[in-house]
Amino acid sequence: MTKQILEHAAANGLLNRRHLLKLGVASIGTAVSASALGAESSLNFSLPSWSRQPGANASGYGERSPHTDFMQRMAGTPNPTYPGGGASRTPLQHLQGTITPNSLHFERHHAGVPAIDPAGHTLVINGLVRQPLAFRYEDLLKYPMISRIHFLECSGNSGALIRGTNGGTAQSLHGLVSCAEWTGIALSTLLDEAGVAPQAQWLAAVGADAASMGRSVPINKAMDDVMVALYQNGEPLRPEQGYPMRLFVPGWEGNISVKWLTQLKLTREAGQFRDETSKYTDTQADRSSLQFTFPMGVKSLITSPSGEMSLAQQGLYQVTGIAWSGNGTIRRVEVSADGGNTWADALIESQVHDRALTRFRIPWQWQGGTAVLMSRATDSAGNVQPTLQSLMARQGSINTYHNNAMQRWAVSQAGEISNDYA
Amino acid sequence: MTKQILEHAAANGLLNRRHLLKLGVASIGTAVSASALGAESSLNFSLPSWSRQPGANASGYGERSPHTDFMQRMAGTPNPTYPGGGASRTPLQHLQGTITPNSLHFERHHAGVPAIDPAGHTLVINGLVRQPLAFRYEDLLKYPMISRIHFLECSGNSGALIRGTNGGTAQSLHGLVSCAEWTGIALSTLLDEAGVAPQAQWLAAVGADAASMGRSVPINKAMDDVMVALYQNGEPLRPEQGYPMRLFVPGWEGNISVKWLTQLKLTREAGQFRDETSKYTDTQADRSSLQFTFPMGVKSLITSPSGEMSLAQQGLYQVTGIAWSGNGTIRRVEVSADGGNTWADALIESQVHDRALTRFRIPWQWQGGTAVLMSRATDSAGNVQPTLQSLMARQGSINTYHNNAMQRWAVSQAGEISNDYA
Repeated sequence: MTKQILEHAAANGLLNRRHLLKLGVASIGTAVSASALGAESSLNFSLPSWSRQPGANASGYGERSPHTDFMQRMAGTPNPTYPGGGASRTPLQHLQGTITPNSLHFERHHAGVPAIDPAGHTLVINGLVRQPLAFRYEDLLKYPMISRIHFLECSGNSGALIRGTNGGTAQSLHGLVSCAEWTGIALSTLLDEAGVAPQAQWLAAVGADAASMGRSVPINKAMDDVMVALYQNGEPLRPEQGYPMRLFVPGWEGNISVKWLTQLKLTREAGQFRDETSKYTDTQADRSSLQFTFPMGVKSLITSPSGEMSLAQQGLYQVTGIAWSGNGTIRRVEVSADGGNTWADALIESQVHDRALTRFRIPWQWQGGTAVLMSRATDSAGNVQPTLQSLMARQGSINTYHNNAMQRWAVSQAGEISNDYA
Repeated sequence: MTKQILEHAAANGLLNRRHLLKLGVASIGTAVSASALGAESSLNFSLPSWSRQPGANASGYGERSPHTDFMQRMAGTPNPTYPGGGASRTPLQHLQGTITPNSLHFERHHAGVPAIDPAGHTLVINGLVRQPLAFRYEDLLKYPMISRIHFLECSGNSGALIRGTNGGTAQSLHGLVSCAEWTGIALSTLLDEAGVAPQAQWLAAVGADAASMGRSVPINKAMDDVMVALYQNGEPLRPEQGYPMRLFVPGWEGNISVKWLTQLKLTREAGQFRDETSKYTDTQADRSSLQFTFPMGVKSLITSPSGEMSLAQQGLYQVTGIAWSGNGTIRRVEVSADGGNTWADALIESQVHDRALTRFRIPWQWQGGTAVLMSRATDSAGNVQPTLQSLMARQGSINTYHNNAMQRWAVSQAGEISNDYA
């Protein structure tokens, strides 16, 4: 417990990632005397009410503790001119690990959440195929399935920073990313059954929502790792995630994983659906349109401490966050406490999966001065997360999609944390 | 699509695991004519109501579709002489993938679910330590955490088969196993802070429920891979899983992962708590007691088709299920359709994690005769799942704990599936 053994890994208090929190400061646990505890047990402590009588019986479908009800998705105010259009954001600053519970997975809808009865839902494969096919939900349950843990991120996530938004939290700025185990049928299985014609270059995927949300998928990707997902974290998809079925396109912008999937049409050309021209096209600085920028870039985010949190006192903190890439696994996450001048390697503390959220942490000693906390991820393909400045130099300020830049969290002398792009 | 290319892998219809379902039989998808679909789209199909107007807005905390509400844990009838004692079982036959959603994770309580306010909960470490310590919930949130995907299984799971139970489903017979991503503090971190005395050989873990559920953990395991878990699948533990904190002991019988953890006492000898003598001790054939049989054996279970399901028609089915081991990863799962005379290798279709549920499948052609479906797992340590006969020859018929034997699902000529141990 001596200060001498603390190994600093970067400026402004970042410590070697192997250091445990207790080093160099008083332990967090409160020392208690043997007499307070009693020689044999802790029963000298006053016994709380819940230890005095039996609690509730086992139940059919569990609920969370009322003490955690404050963890909510952040849903925007409904817009009467765009009924059902909107999103809700995952409370990233309150979660740990890498899996997002289904009730808190982010949403993005173009015409709200359709209340689908699976018995009345059909998936059609048509267009440039040997034999058009129609599948009922019950049919699809008979197919072989695969299960993979993957993130899903809206291409509009973090766009607020390009718009110069003041303030904000990890949730309000970056909450359009989540992660789950997705289970479904390899799309190639169904396409092979229909028989894809050689001239088919694109697959048009259309949802059964009132927006008829449509996106175009290149045939090579469709035959590679895309699935028709039916389950999420073990249970059937939730309605807001596409129940009874959605396309799931690993690593690509979220909207191409078309929900409430009802049609897959093989075509020569891309469909140019409303939502891939009016939206999800990247308007460049010269006002030209860049289409089909599908993969989500390598990215990371410090979730704690983060925007609108405050540090109660000087001392050691565990800086933790999530990292992900649409191009593979996370190989490295570095953290800076001085706005990017010096960097220290963070510890990866979760299991690492291809195109999935990965959890990192590093201990940081805050000594009461100002700081700017940042994280920088590198993926298995060697891509390094950019600064916002370099990202905007490349893609301009009109396009707010595909912002994978580093977030800067400013720490004031009073310990208040804020978005540093104000 | 010719029958000739079907490669049989074992007797009574088991096919090579690489075969897709469509081979050798009519495809499942219904062929539709181009005119029915229209040249351009599927809109000639009548448009369902949910495609005609916008659906519900985004929400703060999502719920599942009412069409999936039938998936419930199976809770036993409350016993007035054992208030709060009981369990609920995961509906394994309805789930896919490997992660169990938190609302459907199995429960086992000795005095019900205490309604704990974390602000009034304390974790004490005492006994043979340099310095007894007390931790509030808020304290523990400041520690470094790790995240791991692990199964949890009650040692009483599948005990009904040893008792000769008639009938039953995957859920009723085997539903005391689930799997989640657990996030928490390495127990060694907290024990190091308290300073474990050299003479400490055991750790007594006690819960804050009215049963004061207690279990003894050998110190070597406690310092190895045990964690004080605070989160499950990303969110805080659910009340029935130990909110605000539980011990999590990877690979070992579930009851040692003490919920609502309030005390960890370092001792020379095992605690001999009520629940590790009256329960969770294995009574041998000669009536002697075998204690501390901690690791859960290598095991697998076919979840579909399974007990009380029926096969509607002859043809190809995807046999699927879960496999796990308390001793490592799953290396191999074999399936038999003739009661164990011949075996074929199943395909592992999920990601494989240490001491976690793993999903397998194999195609099976049912031709209308009787069959007995079984699965047999082998783990990375080379352990092979036993038959019930060999297991009972070893451990007798009094001890119903630690039954990792192969389940036999009998298929009648009418296609009815039943537990074959009747």
